[in-house]
Amino acid sequence: MERDPSEHPSKLAPDSDPVEPSDSSERPSQVGQLGPLLGSAFQLPNFRESRFTIPPPPRGGAAGIENAPEVSHQPEPGSVRLRCVDFDDQQVDVRTFDDVDKLLASRRPSWSLVRWIDVEGLHPYVVNRLREALGLHTLAAEDVWHVPQRPKAEFYGQQVFVVVQRFRVAEDRLQSEQVSAFATRDMLLTFQEEQNDIWGSLRGRIGQPGSRINASDATYLLYAVLDTVVDHDFPILEKYGERLELLEDAVLTAADPQLLREIHAVKRDLLVMRRVLWPMREAIGELTKPDKTMISEAARTYLRDVHDHCVQVMDILETFRELASNLTDLHLSMTSNKMNEVMKVLTIISTIFIPITFLAGVYGMNFDELPELHWRHGYAVFWGICGALTASLVWFFHKRGWLRG
Amino acid sequence: MERDPSEHPSKLAPDSDPVEPSDSSERPSQVGQLGPLLGSAFQLPNFRESRFTIPPPPRGGAAGIENAPEVSHQPEPGSVRLRCVDFDDQQVDVRTFDDVDKLLASRRPSWSLVRWIDVEGLHPYVVNRLREALGLHTLAAEDVWHVPQRPKAEFYGQQVFVVVQRFRVAEDRLQSEQVSAFATRDMLLTFQEEQNDIWGSLRGRIGQPGSRINASDATYLLYAVLDTVVDHDFPILEKYGERLELLEDAVLTAADPQLLREIHAVKRDLLVMRRVLWPMREAIGELTKPDKTMISEAARTYLRDVHDHCVQVMDILETFRELASNLTDLHLSMTSNKMNEVMKVLTIISTIFIPITFLAGVYGMNFDELPELHWRHGYAVFWGICGALTASLVWFFHKRGWLRG
Amino acid sequence: MERDPSEHPSKLAPDSDPVEPSDSSERPSQVGQLGPLLGSAFQLPNFRESRFTIPPPPRGGAAGIENAPEVSHQPEPGSVRLRCVDFDDQQVDVRTFDDVDKLLASRRPSWSLVRWIDVEGLHPYVVNRLREALGLHTLAAEDVWHVPQRPKAEFYGQQVFVVVQRFRVAEDRLQSEQVSAFATRDMLLTFQEEQNDIWGSLRGRIGQPGSRINASDATYLLYAVLDTVVDHDFPILEKYGERLELLEDAVLTAADPQLLREIHAVKRDLLVMRRVLWPMREAIGELTKPDKTMISEAARTYLRDVHDHCVQVMDILETFRELASNLTDLHLSMTSNKMNEVMKVLTIISTIFIPITFLAGVYGMNFDELPELHWRHGYAVFWGICGALTASLVWFFHKRGWLRG
Amino acid sequence: MERDPSEHPSKLAPDSDPVEPSDSSERPSQVGQLGPLLGSAFQLPNFRESRFTIPPPPRGGAAGIENAPEVSHQPEPGSVRLRCVDFDDQQVDVRTFDDVDKLLASRRPSWSLVRWIDVEGLHPYVVNRLREALGLHTLAAEDVWHVPQRPKAEFYGQQVFVVVQRFRVAEDRLQSEQVSAFATRDMLLTFQEEQNDIWGSLRGRIGQPGSRINASDATYLLYAVLDTVVDHDFPILEKYGERLELLEDAVLTAADPQLLREIHAVKRDLLVMRRVLWPMREAIGELTKPDKTMISEAARTYLRDVHDHCVQVMDILETFRELASNLTDLHLSMTSNKMNEVMKVLTIISTIFIPITFLAGVYGMNFDELPELHWRHGYAVFWGICGALTASLVWFFHKRGWLRG
Amino acid sequence: MERDPSEHPSKLAPDSDPVEPSDSSERPSQVGQLGPLLGSAFQLPNFRESRFTIPPPPRGGAAGIENAPEVSHQPEPGSVRLRCVDFDDQQVDVRTFDDVDKLLASRRPSWSLVRWIDVEGLHPYVVNRLREALGLHTLAAEDVWHVPQRPKAEFYGQQVFVVVQRFRVAEDRLQSEQVSAFATRDMLLTFQEEQNDIWGSLRGRIGQPGSRINASDATYLLYAVLDTVVDHDFPILEKYGERLELLEDAVLTAADPQLLREIHAVKRDLLVMRRVLWPMREAIGELTKPDKTMISEAARTYLRDVHDHCVQVMDILETFRELASNLTDLHLSMTSNKMNEVMKVLTIISTIFIPITFLAGVYGMNFDELPELHWRHGYAVFWGICGALTASLVWFFHKRGWLRG
Repeated sequence: MERDPSEHPSKLAPDSDPVEPSDSSERPSQVGQLGPLLGSAFQLPNFRESRFTIPPPPRGGAAGIENAPEVSHQPEPGSVRLRCVDFDDQQVDVRTFDDVDKLLASRRPSWSLVRWIDVEGLHPYVVNRLREALGLHTLAAEDVWHVPQRPKAEFYGQQVFVVVQRFRVAEDRLQSEQVSAFATRDMLLTFQEEQNDIWGSLRGRIGQPGSRINASDATYLLYAVLDTVVDHDFPILEKYGERLELLEDAVLTAADPQLLREIHAVKRDLLVMRRVLWPMREAIGELTKPDKTMISEAARTYLRDVHDHCVQVMDILETFRELASNLTDLHLSMTSNKMNEVMKVLTIISTIFIPITFLAGVYGMNFDELPELHWRHGYAVFWGICGALTASLVWFFHKRGWLRG
Repeated sequence: MERDPSEHPSKLAPDSDPVEPSDSSERPSQVGQLGPLLGSAFQLPNFRESRFTIPPPPRGGAAGIENAPEVSHQPEPGSVRLRCVDFDDQQVDVRTFDDVDKLLASRRPSWSLVRWIDVEGLHPYVVNRLREALGLHTLAAEDVWHVPQRPKAEFYGQQVFVVVQRFRVAEDRLQSEQVSAFATRDMLLTFQEEQNDIWGSLRGRIGQPGSRINASDATYLLYAVLDTVVDHDFPILEKYGERLELLEDAVLTAADPQLLREIHAVKRDLLVMRRVLWPMREAIGELTKPDKTMISEAARTYLRDVHDHCVQVMDILETFRELASNLTDLHLSMTSNKMNEVMKVLTIISTIFIPITFLAGVYGMNFDELPELHWRHGYAVFWGICGALTASLVWFFHKRGWLRG
Repeated sequence: MERDPSEHPSKLAPDSDPVEPSDSSERPSQVGQLGPLLGSAFQLPNFRESRFTIPPPPRGGAAGIENAPEVSHQPEPGSVRLRCVDFDDQQVDVRTFDDVDKLLASRRPSWSLVRWIDVEGLHPYVVNRLREALGLHTLAAEDVWHVPQRPKAEFYGQQVFVVVQRFRVAEDRLQSEQVSAFATRDMLLTFQEEQNDIWGSLRGRIGQPGSRINASDATYLLYAVLDTVVDHDFPILEKYGERLELLEDAVLTAADPQLLREIHAVKRDLLVMRRVLWPMREAIGELTKPDKTMISEAARTYLRDVHDHCVQVMDILETFRELASNLTDLHLSMTSNKMNEVMKVLTIISTIFIPITFLAGVYGMNFDELPELHWRHGYAVFWGICGALTASLVWFFHKRGWLRG
Repeated sequence: MERDPSEHPSKLAPDSDPVEPSDSSERPSQVGQLGPLLGSAFQLPNFRESRFTIPPPPRGGAAGIENAPEVSHQPEPGSVRLRCVDFDDQQVDVRTFDDVDKLLASRRPSWSLVRWIDVEGLHPYVVNRLREALGLHTLAAEDVWHVPQRPKAEFYGQQVFVVVQRFRVAEDRLQSEQVSAFATRDMLLTFQEEQNDIWGSLRGRIGQPGSRINASDATYLLYAVLDTVVDHDFPILEKYGERLELLEDAVLTAADPQLLREIHAVKRDLLVMRRVLWPMREAIGELTKPDKTMISEAARTYLRDVHDHCVQVMDILETFRELASNLTDLHLSMTSNKMNEVMKVLTIISTIFIPITFLAGVYGMNFDELPELHWRHGYAVFWGICGALTASLVWFFHKRGWLRG
Repeated sequence: MERDPSEHPSKLAPDSDPVEPSDSSERPSQVGQLGPLLGSAFQLPNFRESRFTIPPPPRGGAAGIENAPEVSHQPEPGSVRLRCVDFDDQQVDVRTFDDVDKLLASRRPSWSLVRWIDVEGLHPYVVNRLREALGLHTLAAEDVWHVPQRPKAEFYGQQVFVVVQRFRVAEDRLQSEQVSAFATRDMLLTFQEEQNDIWGSLRGRIGQPGSRINASDATYLLYAVLDTVVDHDFPILEKYGERLELLEDAVLTAADPQLLREIHAVKRDLLVMRRVLWPMREAIGELTKPDKTMISEAARTYLRDVHDHCVQVMDILETFRELASNLTDLHLSMTSNKMNEVMKVLTIISTIFIPITFLAGVYGMNFDELPELHWRHGYAVFWGICGALTASLVWFFHKRGWLRG
């Protein structure tokens, strides 16, 4: 029943970013580390530093992005990057800016059917400038900057505002990054927390011959963005699924107390994912409702597909939560069984030797008159009694089934 | 009570296809073999290889079957089989094809009221060709090929698209196979993952005198297909029911740690079945709603019957889940009781012998002056004290009820 | 405290029919016999043979009673009994038949306002003949014969079809029998599985002066039938209530492992009852909805009363389930406490004697120079030390509260 | 950490009737009994005799009060008391009757705006006579007499029928008494099970200057009656709250097995209260719905206040249930901890003495050649080894943290 | 590792008011003090004195503030403070009164668009006078004074009445204070229980240039008040989050029984918070419904933001509750593991020494004929046997994995 830890261990460590194809090529370096992996990989994420558990305490002042600190200061150069993508079904134009004011000053080409402004990095000044220029609601703009927010979809006139959380596993920890998006029919504005080009492959699809994105409006692009975020959860869940299997095998084999930490860590991660994914499902469901006419008919059909994926993710998550919960019970039961085994060994040894030790003690006594000591075969009789006692006890234990495993 | 797991393991395994009537006739032979059953049958299914836990990671590209890899390559000959059944209330015509293009080129007879195309084996090329020929939605076509999907029912104009999962127990493991169906009033298109003729008995009913299928439209045929899939769950559940009974008897008899694995395995299978059956119930319920006019009135009445069966399956499943959960608690309690018993034996033996062993030790001491050693009946008095001590302890234990069971 | 299971087991068994009034008069005799009650009555019902857990596997063929096997064969004489009751507010006429064809051939009297046909025993031929004669739906007719079905109420034009399950305790086991009923305004058709006259007292009420049944239509009679079935659950629940009390007392007194089986058996029975009663409540609730005009206004008011009783039964059942669940926890805790007690005895005895036994061993050594042996009061000092050690340990245990309870 | 049981124990025992002011004056007699109180007060209420768990088995006959036994016999004199209160905003007239026929014969004064008939004690004859005189529905009248019923509110034309349960703690047990009421705009009829004047203070408020009751119709009086019943639950819940606190302190201090009984008893009482209060909340909520025009506008506003109180009671109850459930877990954990402590003492003592006892045994052997025995400082070396062994084991235990707490 | 609970207890206590910014600057000093933190901070709040568990028993008399005791007596001077704030978009006027009659006598300036009367301290006289002057409903006024009430929002004509609870941690205990508010479009009346200026920073925002409050009506001010109350929960939750992390670390390290008390205390606090926050979420949700036209459109948009925060607080709370529940399970498992470890040490030591102690006993016997004693290398052989026995047992234990961990 020994498992060879060197077999296929490459799947154990959650990759720092599971969609990165280059990442999987690095996996072999972790071969041969299954033992330590169980101990060290995926270590108890430090709850204190996990960003999504408690949002930063509100500032207690007036609501709205224009009341945020540093709203009137330009960000440090390089801390925020803006990508502006204009396209119609014929052409695509991608430009990158470091300065929001330059972006706002640049003219939108007349042929541009859809403009996508993608902001990497958050700064109140940038958010506020975009709010003013594009007419966003101040509470929505504050939610972009005041991360993390609960996932939601809100409608302001012909504008839709969506907040979702994108999970990733970095530095052996589950982390989430807020992705916020404002969409109208001809414009999409997305924000992400850090400079990390997560839309690369999506941008690559724009302008490819026959791409549906080019032939559609900005709400279809919003669908594509949400689809990218949601589908990113599948490989992460797969990692947790593999982790649970390993833990299950390990619990059934050894019931090591160390495993409790691991199970607990998995449970907590799943709990945290659930807290984010539940409202996300609702938010995306909101977008697919037929009365939301600011979403184009085509985009709505595709958003239903994203919603299906969200429901599937929740199904898997709940199944994993129940599996993890079963594992805790299983561990407790296996521990009880192990203790039973230990106790049986102790009891068998003690019960066999304690009576005959007493007997040996008796014949070690120094009474003047202790007739058995002078019997001819006294010593042999003594061993005979010991043997008979032991045999009957062994029979008794066998009868009770204590000598088996 | 020793169980030899190598005995008749093949009889223990749930049959590869439980609806086989020959199977039930073999059942009596298993009655006398419950012991071995427990040890080896229904072994912990390997979660990693169970197909339905995590869908394959999405490809990250654009959605739609036309973007699938290999969509423009013909499948290898023999890997996909197509059956085309045309019938009206008078005649039936069944043809089998290996090549989708040949099928599409063949003319539908003018007398054919209903055409049923049944595809065994999945290949993007085949799915895409059928999509083009029959005007299916590209997202639905992708769901046919990108298995497993969550069971669902979707409506596209006068077309209905249904995804269900069919369970089977193969190689000692619970497996699921996706069955997808597109139906209009005069055409049914079904897909299954592997070449495994599961519709044999259904096809046999077409053309039999008085058969209701021949007299009805294609949505009634859809009902018959779904009915076959759902009713297939009953014998599988029956296996799990028998398994739970055996486990229950075993837990109440022996509380072997091995049983924990078995209970855990059953719990996991039930959890997995539930994850699939819950949306299946919803999907079939969706088909019975009176506003779905693409389903004929007659078919709707019969689909309500299928929905009833689905609800019954869920009821049984939830009952089994609770029974399994009770078994875990019961096992823990039985283990505690067993430990209690072990501890009582140890305590009784120790408590009786430890004091008199001390006494024997005392009279084994070599003090110069140890008056009792020289008493006339010292040795007899010693045994008297030992006897009295033992008797009073036995009385004490009897009083506390420790000498029983 | 030894319980002899052979003592008066017949008194312990829940009566075959708990509504018998003679039963309650016998109850006092059971008061003094709680001990034996616990051991033998209400033994673990054999789940395998309990009919309601898994319905018989569907036959895999076409649905409908006309496809059932033996549908064209007459039943064996005596296996099915039919009672035909005709009445108006003036007179009553009861006739019994063995042959369904004779019943169908007999003319209904012109004065008959309500005809009640009661079928005891199920046979496809009988069900099908009645279906043809009375115009029942084939799926409903199949549900009558293909027992057990989930309780439900279905409406076919001016006909209502109701399936309920009637519980009884027979041969120490909880069993259920399906009662199916078709009702129009002037006709009631009921089916039960076995020849067991459960409607005796109800039939007796027909024709009594001032009886509300005679003055009402057939849906009021349907109410009376359902009321009889539902009210039959109260004495059964009362038995389980008494059982739970006995178990509670027993767990708090002794925490015998045998009790676990009993609690488990009660839990399983309650689980099974719940599975049947939950849809039964829904089905009866369905009948009381104001849009069901095939139920007369008067009958609807009375059916609300039956629905109230159903809700009350479910309330009691859920309370019992929670009580039983608490009992399991309580048993585990009591077992832990008992083990604690056992361990304390072992620890106290061991801790007191082990050190002084060592001391006795020391002075049993044969060193040439062992000065204490030659001290004048060496032996007395030895006992002094033993006494002092023991006293201080007893004080230590007293301090920790281990000598109590 | 010892608590002095004589401090303020008067609050521990649930008073026989918590609203009675005279009752609290009797409390001092329970002073000094905290210890025993934990053991004896609030003893496990005898489930068998608790009236509300299972309603009496239905009689199996026709429904309706006119079919009740003894319906045509007058009750024994003195067993039923009727109070008739007539009032308008100027005057009040209270009369007490022993005979329902006399009451019905007495004329209602012409100035009487509201008549309140309060019946103490239940008898079918009285209920039936009132039914005939006041035109009540026979099923409602049966529910008045056939106690206990599930709380509910039913509407018959301009009449409203309400059933609630009033809790009280009598003879150390939680009991419930059914209060039934029929109300129209100008008449209120209330029933209670026993002769126990619970409306004294309410009656006192009628006729007081400025009393809102006198200025309102009979549905406001119905509100006042329900308010009295619901507010009566608060002091009872307060008792349970205090009880839970005491148990919590006790579990964290001692984890006595006796506490398990107490927690179990509290859990059961809370379960029983919940079963009654849940439908009571619904019933009162039903009365506040705006479409119930038989309730006056003013009364409806005040009934919303009663509904608020009901919701508050349920909130508290659910919180208590969760607290009690946590206590069970806590008790199990504390028991485990205690066992751990016991085991550590045993292990420390055994582990220290067993090796050196062996050593002493070695030097008590009688081998001809046992060189150490003849060493010069053999005995001293022996003690040295014993000391060294003990020291290193103590160090080992200290290292593992076993010597703490 | 001994913790001295008297060390720095003042630093451990959650600050009396967590929003104080100076507080967060002090946090780093606590980093090095986690040990002491665990022992003394956040001690088990005394449930008995927690005000929110059970509301004070109702007085049993008529409802309405005018029936409260002392309603006709003026409060003691200084016990109630009233602040009157009048503002429009140009100017602000703040006045403080000790006497409600003086406040009511003072004229409202004609330029005042919004008047905010803030009452600190509750007295029936003051509440009743304001009720009369401002036309409040008597039941609402009673709820202001009869604290604590369940959070709720009620609508009386153009007036809205809101009750919320504000949490704070004072004297190491979680406490709640009721904040009640009446609002119309041009007037806001708020009550709090004690003289504790919690609206300081909010009042400061009135009159600041560009403040949205000045430009809006009184319902926007109501929003600002509710926002202050809800956002106050975040830092409190953060404390509990930190607490849970510390406990988690501690349980995984030591599983001290003391930790159970801590976990239990946290669970209880979370339970109590949940009981208050759940209806608070509903109440605020009620205010955001579009049919509540007494709330201005602008205020409604901002109230949705408060509602979002409430939902977020509930999410966090539920996550914490599940984490705390997992901690209890974890603690039980860790305790089991620790016991396992203790038992293994005992078993290993006993099993090794008990047989050889018996052997030593044998050769200490005084039989006349005990041949081994006279063997030449008897003593060496004895040690050889002991060594062999020990070695084989060590090998056995190693084999079973008992020597690890």
